[in-house]
Amino acid sequence: MNMAQLFEKKKQGKALSQAEIQYFVEGYTTGSIPDYQASSLLMAIRLLGMTDDEIFYLTKAMIESGDVIDLTSIEGFKIDKHSTGGVGDKVTLIVTPIIAALDIPVAKFSGKGLGITGGTIDKLESIRGFKTELSSQEFIDNVNKHKIAVAGQTGNLVPADKKLYALRDVTGTVDSIPLIAASIMSKKIASGADGIVLDVKCGSGAFMKTEEEAQVLADTMTAIGEKLGRKVVAHISDMDNPLGKMIGNKLEVVEAYALLSGRMDETHVDLLEECIIISSLMYQVAAGVNEAEATAAVKRVLEDGSAAAKFDEFIVAQGGDLADLVQKDTANKVAVKASSEGTVETINALLIGEASVSLGAGRLTKESELDYDAGIHLIAKKGDRVRADEPIAYLHSNRQIDEETIEKVQQAFTII
Amino acid sequence: MNMAQLFEKKKQGKALSQAEIQYFVEGYTTGSIPDYQASSLLMAIRLLGMTDDEIFYLTKAMIESGDVIDLTSIEGFKIDKHSTGGVGDKVTLIVTPIIAALDIPVAKFSGKGLGITGGTIDKLESIRGFKTELSSQEFIDNVNKHKIAVAGQTGNLVPADKKLYALRDVTGTVDSIPLIAASIMSKKIASGADGIVLDVKCGSGAFMKTEEEAQVLADTMTAIGEKLGRKVVAHISDMDNPLGKMIGNKLEVVEAYALLSGRMDETHVDLLEECIIISSLMYQVAAGVNEAEATAAVKRVLEDGSAAAKFDEFIVAQGGDLADLVQKDTANKVAVKASSEGTVETINALLIGEASVSLGAGRLTKESELDYDAGIHLIAKKGDRVRADEPIAYLHSNRQIDEETIEKVQQAFTII
Repeated sequence: MNMAQLFEKKKQGKALSQAEIQYFVEGYTTGSIPDYQASSLLMAIRLLGMTDDEIFYLTKAMIESGDVIDLTSIEGFKIDKHSTGGVGDKVTLIVTPIIAALDIPVAKFSGKGLGITGGTIDKLESIRGFKTELSSQEFIDNVNKHKIAVAGQTGNLVPADKKLYALRDVTGTVDSIPLIAASIMSKKIASGADGIVLDVKCGSGAFMKTEEEAQVLADTMTAIGEKLGRKVVAHISDMDNPLGKMIGNKLEVVEAYALLSGRMDETHVDLLEECIIISSLMYQVAAGVNEAEATAAVKRVLEDGSAAAKFDEFIVAQGGDLADLVQKDTANKVAVKASSEGTVETINALLIGEASVSLGAGRLTKESELDYDAGIHLIAKKGDRVRADEPIAYLHSNRQIDEETIEKVQQAFTII
Repeated sequence: MNMAQLFEKKKQGKALSQAEIQYFVEGYTTGSIPDYQASSLLMAIRLLGMTDDEIFYLTKAMIESGDVIDLTSIEGFKIDKHSTGGVGDKVTLIVTPIIAALDIPVAKFSGKGLGITGGTIDKLESIRGFKTELSSQEFIDNVNKHKIAVAGQTGNLVPADKKLYALRDVTGTVDSIPLIAASIMSKKIASGADGIVLDVKCGSGAFMKTEEEAQVLADTMTAIGEKLGRKVVAHISDMDNPLGKMIGNKLEVVEAYALLSGRMDETHVDLLEECIIISSLMYQVAAGVNEAEATAAVKRVLEDGSAAAKFDEFIVAQGGDLADLVQKDTANKVAVKASSEGTVETINALLIGEASVSLGAGRLTKESELDYDAGIHLIAKKGDRVRADEPIAYLHSNRQIDEETIEKVQQAFTII
């Protein structure tokens, strides 16, 4: 077999076989297929698509490129969730303790953030003392004891995805539904959970700009998961507007903690609603209950304080300092003012995300240093009435805050 | 500017601007754009095509990537020809002395062969003493004195094409009409001729399998040439069957010499007809005469021996030994026999070309060593009646001739 045959077949509109896709993934991961051949095939996939079978074979070959985590020593149905990434998306921080409080084991591996979408691992690492590198044994012990553990992805989980993603990022082949689906599902399945809830974002702040595209991605991922014997449910949610009030690593932890503790004035109802939907789906999948039962259970653990208590237990179990769950002053703080009087029609999530990266809350490249305390606090949200020159957001950073960033945040608000 | 913008635009179906195409060609030639980004863009071009403007900008940028040969010190209208490559295609060896005998300067740069299509330079180098590396001054002096010089392409003529072609060869992007057209035309135009006759081959032994494709390629190349102020005429010819009787470097030189000398029993009328068409077109373009006048002139220099005398003069002028214009015995010689009685309906040029490469007459990779005396002598041609077991071809090689090659040549003949 050689790459020339794969190019020829793909160009003729034929589907690649399982053996051909395995040859490609193995060869590229081990280095026998060079970058320039891989990128040419990736562009062909981006432009011509893949059949359901091809996507399945690709996902399978990617899973087999590295280690697969064995969670069988954890009792019960292990549930995981994945978000395709949004601005201010701290849902994982909230739903995992809710589910653990419902006695369902949550064994979650998360990534670091890149670009405008933050990573759960970065958020947790902003808490003093919190440890995201756990040995397999520590991880499994924590889940068995506390029903919850969240760790950074280990070295050899889906190495094919690490190489392919880095190449896609610089060859115009990120925005391909088959490649996105295989990338996400290979990591989720290699992470060992029995069930997965997918939170597929659409809108200005997400990869998928329209609901139709988001639906295709959701269906593609669900089909892969089911073929590999996992229970998978997908939910599509709006990412035109940032989620909640806080954008930034530590700021989001503080907001999540406030929501779990019932301090709704420190957060926003859009985040609460999204968390209830996702945790209800997770509970439905894991416990086999219906929507009404699941939603009632979720609301109960939120109201009786057991989800908040589980969050404390989780933070302490991984070495975090509860006294550090407070917003820190930054060297610089700037108020962004409303450009006119009116009602906030929308807050452009893409612009807010880009501004938060400039403030130090996100990475431009893998090597970027994060400012954990940097970020944006949205005072006004969609639907709020504002007066001209009233503060609508605060920017926090330990770096110099430039005029461009301030203007970008102001422009993110459409006031009518 | 960066490659991400080019990928985005191309994926959206928009045409790249002249500045963007220049950025790509310059960046790739100088090494600031890596192979893996170039191959991704090439695959996008292969699958999405290019507009006429894009093809023109690409050709222009490729020409500007290196030196352009200045032929202004040669008097008269300089004519060149190019064949897209065929099996047994020794037309250049025949038409260039015909045109020179008609007092039109032929200043020709040629390439080495790769794959099943031979290169004129390889054929000439099979003549003892023949020098294809000429200094600019020697080249120009020869054209001024003898009206003919044929040299290998110099080091820095269209370096962009050398890099791009090597990459296309291993990334499934050779079979793209815009890329083929830009590759051929950039080299032809950088070679400095005023007029160009394009011999576009179609059929089993050519890149273009159908006449429709060949016509699109011909039209594309003609349009580029005219935009760059050159007189360009294209002729489409059949390459289902090999041209003439001989395939192999020295064998083709011997056949060309026989044809020029009027020894038609040593060649075949299909080659003569093709050479008359191409040389007539070259003379029409260069001298501004009509088809009937041009064809009559061509036939005259063939019949009165002045084309053959010009060939001798050309060979001697570049150091070649006229006594070496004879077929050499090879260590191995095998007769291929007709599998049945009947009429030869077709001889598959692709299979004959592949067999000639196996015999040592062509290169599999740039590093392959040639056996100049190796090749195939077709005894039967299309339309000939043959008896079972009668020899239909002879294979010549200084290497061991394997069974597979013999069978391939036998299978190339369809006898009905």
